[in-house]
Amino acid sequence: MESGGEQVGVKEQLFAEIILATTGRIDGIVHLVTDVPVDGAALEESLGRLARGFLTALMRPQVLQLRRLIIANADRFPELGAAWYEQGFERVLATLATTFQRLADQGLLRIDDPLLAADHFVGLLLWIPVNKAMFHGAPQHTQAELDHYADVGVRTFLAAHRPSVQEARH
Amino acid sequence: MESGGEQVGVKEQLFAEIILATTGRIDGIVHLVTDVPVDGAALEESLGRLARGFLTALMRPQVLQLRRLIIANADRFPELGAAWYEQGFERVLATLATTFQRLADQGLLRIDDPLLAADHFVGLLLWIPVNKAMFHGAPQHTQAELDHYADVGVRTFLAAHRPSVQEARH
Repeated sequence: MESGGEQVGVKEQLFAEIILATTGRIDGIVHLVTDVPVDGAALEESLGRLARGFLTALMRPQVLQLRRLIIANADRFPELGAAWYEQGFERVLATLATTFQRLADQGLLRIDDPLLAADHFVGLLLWIPVNKAMFHGAPQHTQAELDHYADVGVRTFLAAHRPSVQEARH
Repeated sequence: MESGGEQVGVKEQLFAEIILATTGRIDGIVHLVTDVPVDGAALEESLGRLARGFLTALMRPQVLQLRRLIIANADRFPELGAAWYEQGFERVLATLATTFQRLADQGLLRIDDPLLAADHFVGLLLWIPVNKAMFHGAPQHTQAELDHYADVGVRTFLAAHRPSVQEARH
């Protein structure tokens, strides 16, 4: 299992390049979570579309493989794991928080802490399918299952964050 | 990186024994999520206690280390990862679902699908702290932060699942 120092250096560089090459893809996901129309009547549909696209992007075999690779090596190369967490994981959450704040400003959502709402939204969608894939060593889902996770996740999110009829009138 | 067949056999056995030794601990977590009193007035407090205990148990350094080890090796030893997922991960969710069904039967929660509610509850609590630890290579949290994740997770869960005043009267 142990390699010489030189080999570790090569592996670390290779690993860093894989992560950097993939960070570009995050832009696509960031764009996806920015693009939610402010339309109260279509809110469940809009968030459902966002959730389905988000799950589809995050559950691609290559993305899951990269996730496994980073997690497997994060104790050896913590700076690389931390960089991925901040530039990938947290960037998407911050963008989603901005979107939720915009929807809350328009009275479409009732949200105290937009970043927390983003954390919860993503946790509702991803906890089960990501862990299932991580622990089984390969993706286990069909597209229909992903769409189902998206729809039920959005429904629970809206049950917690939709303004009451009375609030919506103001 | 490559080892001989014999060495792989030894590693696989060692890995299997670590997983089995830890499955016993799951019983403690299962007991924790069973033990929720049916008391409407104290529901937020009871679920908060459950959530804090659950987060504290799952975020122990050894548990996180085992999680990383299983995820890192799940593509090589998928049967072991699958066994852990079913006997650990899913067993806790099934027990939590039974607890939620009991609370729903008593009119304390409004729940259509108790297993989905359990999935969502755990996702609300764990998505952020678990990923933060996984990507950084080591636990990043304080106990106060874990308690905060527990409290805000329970608050969002109850916002989605607490019966309306009208329903609660029936």
